[in-house]
Amino acid sequence: MKLITVGTVAFDRIETPFGKADKVVGGAATYISLAASFFTDGLGLVSVIGEDFPEDMLEMMRERGIDLNGLEVLPGRESFFWAGRYHYDMNTRDTLETRLNVLSDLDPRLPEPYAQATYLMLGNLDPVVQAKVLEQMKERPALVVMDTMNFWMDSALDKLKEVIASVDILAINDAEARQLSGEHSLVRAADKILTMGPKYLVVKKGEHGALLFGQGRVFFAPALPLEDIVDPTGAGDTFAGGFVGYLAHTQDHSFENLKRAIIVGSALASFCCERFGVQRLLEIGREDIDQRIQQFVDLVDFDIQLVGS
Amino acid sequence: MKLITVGTVAFDRIETPFGKADKVVGGAATYISLAASFFTDGLGLVSVIGEDFPEDMLEMMRERGIDLNGLEVLPGRESFFWAGRYHYDMNTRDTLETRLNVLSDLDPRLPEPYAQATYLMLGNLDPVVQAKVLEQMKERPALVVMDTMNFWMDSALDKLKEVIASVDILAINDAEARQLSGEHSLVRAADKILTMGPKYLVVKKGEHGALLFGQGRVFFAPALPLEDIVDPTGAGDTFAGGFVGYLAHTQDHSFENLKRAIIVGSALASFCCERFGVQRLLEIGREDIDQRIQQFVDLVDFDIQLVGS
Repeated sequence: MKLITVGTVAFDRIETPFGKADKVVGGAATYISLAASFFTDGLGLVSVIGEDFPEDMLEMMRERGIDLNGLEVLPGRESFFWAGRYHYDMNTRDTLETRLNVLSDLDPRLPEPYAQATYLMLGNLDPVVQAKVLEQMKERPALVVMDTMNFWMDSALDKLKEVIASVDILAINDAEARQLSGEHSLVRAADKILTMGPKYLVVKKGEHGALLFGQGRVFFAPALPLEDIVDPTGAGDTFAGGFVGYLAHTQDHSFENLKRAIIVGSALASFCCERFGVQRLLEIGREDIDQRIQQFVDLVDFDIQLVGS
Repeated sequence: MKLITVGTVAFDRIETPFGKADKVVGGAATYISLAASFFTDGLGLVSVIGEDFPEDMLEMMRERGIDLNGLEVLPGRESFFWAGRYHYDMNTRDTLETRLNVLSDLDPRLPEPYAQATYLMLGNLDPVVQAKVLEQMKERPALVVMDTMNFWMDSALDKLKEVIASVDILAINDAEARQLSGEHSLVRAADKILTMGPKYLVVKKGEHGALLFGQGRVFFAPALPLEDIVDPTGAGDTFAGGFVGYLAHTQDHSFENLKRAIIVGSALASFCCERFGVQRLLEIGREDIDQRIQQFVDLVDFDIQLVGS
């Protein structure tokens, strides 16, 4: 197994100023795995769902090379459900409803091949669960990437810091980086977070792009300016999936290659926002991704002679 | 005369979460002219001040090659004064006090050499005043760049649109672009604004960088992630000054060169934020600017092979 992902597999109800989606498939591990599947095989997914989860969606994931032996199905139970509303500023959202359902029983036990994976993606989840997955790995993976959110900073900071201390790359949004560090400046926030354990910090800024900090260097990737953002749900997870999937494929953890992985993740995330749920990710192919990456190249490309002194 | 700028020359009182400045020299035309002076000579400034304006600041501007024959001094009167407060999110601010003072009497009459300038920068001002300057030009300048703000959209939209229709490049912030176009998406906003007359639109997004739209193309320049933003006042004007100063120097209005001008403007703006008022602009030299531009090159540089289909 090359890359395993632990995270939610869920239903979402989404409202935006431009439309509604009543009950679409979502969840961090869903977005991450689908995005990663464009770049690498040997994917495994660790999560829990209820009996209500649509079989055709599971079949579609299997077809994309995502192994589901790590996905527990609890009979007679319902899958995790989240409902949220976005406003014109798509960078913030209100949670309208959260039904944990099966998620409260997530107690991952890794199948044997999963425990030997080279890459591990810890999607946003209770840090206790993230730690349990990490502990079950036979050998330390070549690279562990982690996401989390403000909820765990408020409710489980000590455990969260313990997990953060043992990962290679933390990928969180700007508000979370500020909260975790207590610093408003993202440069200072990064300095502080990089003393907590991770070698690299990725700061996801939604429509304002993403920053990569580490080794005393910084890299910035813009988000693609889109005519319409239909639904940003899952964009951060899609970014993470493209990022870690590209790294698992290239097996190169240099700063130069992390930059490429950030661009790949940004390209995938831009697709994600074009439809509700995972729909757009199911429509695109490698050629679409290449075209989109070329748009990123063009977007920031400039060639300047220094003005000279 | 190569480049003339019309705009305010003023005093500012500034409060930020990190400090205060009681009465520092500011104003759009001050920042624009100082920033442009790093790149081009033949600068002229059109504005009005009171007797209270410090002579040493005027002398310093003359030393930097800024001609002040277009700067009227009204005896016994006070200069324009603005007081504002920033919060942690430096992208928004509250105006605490505005005293127009001499500004209500600004009725620009261009000295002969000014009326023949090749480049014209219309800083944020009453569009009636901007139009008066434009009308006095003997020949249509090679390039007219214009800034404005929400206040004029609320109070003088028809006149404002008249001026916008006659400029080459409109440079405004993201909230202003949204208000002017009635579109939330910046891509749609740009499409709409480019039908109003300008060939190019620059959208200034503060700490989130800047976008250039035109000729069916788009370019994005990040803002440099800074450890501390001491005072963002004037950063937008400094950006515009670096931008138009670089264009006046290079006399190349191609999309490729506009991109370079955006990077130059962004570099200058990043310095502006490091001290209160214009102070940092008075400390730096061309070598500092070159170093900063190199940081921008490094910040967004990546080299990617398309993943292939």
